[in-house]
Amino acid sequence: MTETMPIVADMLLIGGTLVTMNSKREIIKNGALAIRGSEIAWIGSAEEAEHQVEADRRIDARDGIIIPGLINAHSHLPMTLFRGLADDQPLEAWLERIWKVETDFATAENTRVGTQLALVEMIRGGVTCSADMYWQYITNIETAKAAGFRLVNGPPMIGVDGPGGALTGDLEARAREFIAEHHDNPLLHLCIQVHGTYTATDEMLEVAVNLASELDILFMTHASESKAEVETVTERFSKTPIEHLYAWGLLGPRTLLAHCVHLRDDEIALLSETGTSVAHCPESNLKLGNGVARVPEMLNAGVNVALGTDGAATNNDLDMFGELRTAALMHKGIHLDPTILPAKEAFAMATINGARAFRLADRIGSLELGKLADIAVIDLGAAHVTPMYDVYSHLCYAVDKHDVTDVFVHGKQVMSNRKLLTLDEHKIKVEARRIAQAIATKMQG
Amino acid sequence: MTETMPIVADMLLIGGTLVTMNSKREIIKNGALAIRGSEIAWIGSAEEAEHQVEADRRIDARDGIIIPGLINAHSHLPMTLFRGLADDQPLEAWLERIWKVETDFATAENTRVGTQLALVEMIRGGVTCSADMYWQYITNIETAKAAGFRLVNGPPMIGVDGPGGALTGDLEARAREFIAEHHDNPLLHLCIQVHGTYTATDEMLEVAVNLASELDILFMTHASESKAEVETVTERFSKTPIEHLYAWGLLGPRTLLAHCVHLRDDEIALLSETGTSVAHCPESNLKLGNGVARVPEMLNAGVNVALGTDGAATNNDLDMFGELRTAALMHKGIHLDPTILPAKEAFAMATINGARAFRLADRIGSLELGKLADIAVIDLGAAHVTPMYDVYSHLCYAVDKHDVTDVFVHGKQVMSNRKLLTLDEHKIKVEARRIAQAIATKMQG
Repeated sequence: MTETMPIVADMLLIGGTLVTMNSKREIIKNGALAIRGSEIAWIGSAEEAEHQVEADRRIDARDGIIIPGLINAHSHLPMTLFRGLADDQPLEAWLERIWKVETDFATAENTRVGTQLALVEMIRGGVTCSADMYWQYITNIETAKAAGFRLVNGPPMIGVDGPGGALTGDLEARAREFIAEHHDNPLLHLCIQVHGTYTATDEMLEVAVNLASELDILFMTHASESKAEVETVTERFSKTPIEHLYAWGLLGPRTLLAHCVHLRDDEIALLSETGTSVAHCPESNLKLGNGVARVPEMLNAGVNVALGTDGAATNNDLDMFGELRTAALMHKGIHLDPTILPAKEAFAMATINGARAFRLADRIGSLELGKLADIAVIDLGAAHVTPMYDVYSHLCYAVDKHDVTDVFVHGKQVMSNRKLLTLDEHKIKVEARRIAQAIATKMQG
Repeated sequence: MTETMPIVADMLLIGGTLVTMNSKREIIKNGALAIRGSEIAWIGSAEEAEHQVEADRRIDARDGIIIPGLINAHSHLPMTLFRGLADDQPLEAWLERIWKVETDFATAENTRVGTQLALVEMIRGGVTCSADMYWQYITNIETAKAAGFRLVNGPPMIGVDGPGGALTGDLEARAREFIAEHHDNPLLHLCIQVHGTYTATDEMLEVAVNLASELDILFMTHASESKAEVETVTERFSKTPIEHLYAWGLLGPRTLLAHCVHLRDDEIALLSETGTSVAHCPESNLKLGNGVARVPEMLNAGVNVALGTDGAATNNDLDMFGELRTAALMHKGIHLDPTILPAKEAFAMATINGARAFRLADRIGSLELGKLADIAVIDLGAAHVTPMYDVYSHLCYAVDKHDVTDVFVHGKQVMSNRKLLTLDEHKIKVEARRIAQAIATKMQG
């Protein structure tokens, strides 16, 4: 008889309800999980862990919840600097105001601060991976890498002027150069981006379709966010944004579309047939008066729907727990049916569906052996989460961003007992306030 | 020349943005407010305060916000014990499950714990006054009084069986006895309550109309919450709930109706003409699949609309900041108009409109000289509230319950730097978990 060799690990999370989000949606009460290097090296019960795992460090998650890190499927990170700058206004006025400020203030340095502020906020809220679309994308990528945060990003192309003006020109060469330079960053999952069909030139769409296909990388764009956008695009191309993308060969399992608020039945069917994913951003859609995406219909049709916060200028935060709650509540009320989008399904949108949308479902989005250790630990000590009957219901309707205590990305701890380990939060906030002061002064002048 | 005599106060809140919510909606940047006894004794700038106020104690609210305590216009406090017990189910299944559990578990002792848990959660979230409707109402009133929390409560009448069975019988005598006993509690604002037109007997409505009118006290009831309720009542009385209440003489400035989701134009006009107030509970309405109340239409018609959380079994929290945010977001999305229910107006729903609904607008709901000192202090140190451009926008879309640091009710501090002063939070949570364990065991059996 040989003795079972213990699993040697760097970190053991032990105790608490472990929500795997694996295909069986298994839940381990009083569970445990071991991290070695960047990966999940062991999963089981707390009792088994005591016998089978030898770990350098451990976190006692008793009476808490261990979940896959939340995945933010759509955002514009540095826009934290513009949080609440132009609220309760029509979209056109909003865009005019925000874009004007961006032109003046979205320098590489300010973008770094805005991105850092976004990372602080997201890590505090249990988010371990986010999509990002922004002018100064290289700054964002470097900032996220330095903070140990997982990013889905790549060259965005937009047919309007912006700060730096770097998003037009020799698009394909720039994109290839960028991709060659960044392909070995383990925290960066490359993509190619177009802002939207209403701002894209044909050249941009051609670069996108060629690169996504040749390099087999993700393509992200905004689509059918507002009625006005659908009308504009339809008038210009005699096709809706969805039809236009389809005609360009830009729908498919490599494509993630943000918003998709205004879809006809046949467009939902087209997304389903082509395996296109959608990033649902309920709070942004509500706040900008764009409407309510047909999420239950998309899910029923088999479309993979993930969840995103959008930028903090339209939300006004990067709180995925809030987004999850809004999504789960909203569709029940709109459809007059409390059984629509149950908590478990909504929580999947914030985790495994996001991973699927990023084509990373084999690496992140659930807690499974061999997957990357992107994990959040939730404390249930507060009054507003007392008592708990059902863990999914709790995650969806009661837990909030402040209940997150510990966060791991790629096996590395980035928050410990609510203290950030890779970002100087105080300094970032001071810098952000200074920039905001300059913006406020400029706008008054 | 005589020197100006200084104002002598018990407490000075100094620095920060003071949001008065007075009729001019004045905001004092770098403001200050002094409390003496139960009242606001002085308001002005921080600079003036240094010369004009002598206070025993002070709280430095620099870089924060000072607001009127939030007012929860509709709730069932002890239902915190059933938080998430029956989610994502049709209303009938929900009621069956919850009422069955209540019959077994809503003892006076458990009700005390549930109410205390609700008070902890609300005080932490900046709420200083709440309506309450529950079987064991005397327990709730005593619990709130002991905790120094302001309650709007009184005998509820319901034509179905409940724990204790105390809500039918010689209704008028019981109600009179109760009112005589409790009229001198400064933290209790008396009312008479009927559960709803679909569960009320004629006797109950008669008692309500007589007592409310004779004693000039508030009348509260649920009305037009679900389509099914409207259909049931219409079938039974050939009148909608609103019409039925009107026929009984139960609409008017003394009446506060919870929900009012399904209203016709002429019913909105009737609420306006009669001066009836509405407690809008957006998250409960969404979660139970009841729909979206026509709040912009009601406000346009001049109806006073306040905001409520409903009970924690249907929400699943008592977070007025969350409710405020949901209300402000939701109606924009439903109406495809980002200018609807702007942040300032939404914040009024959570403060002064609540006071008006309770007929207490001369005492609470705004920060004004001589009003009762019901106040919350908000810290803006966290990343998710950095930076701030507009204070109303921030209160509505970014600030959350965890940003509240200090709370005063009736001049008395009930939370200091996030520590509760009148409730043993740890003990309450332990007791609540023990009760929940018994409920869970019973339900599995």
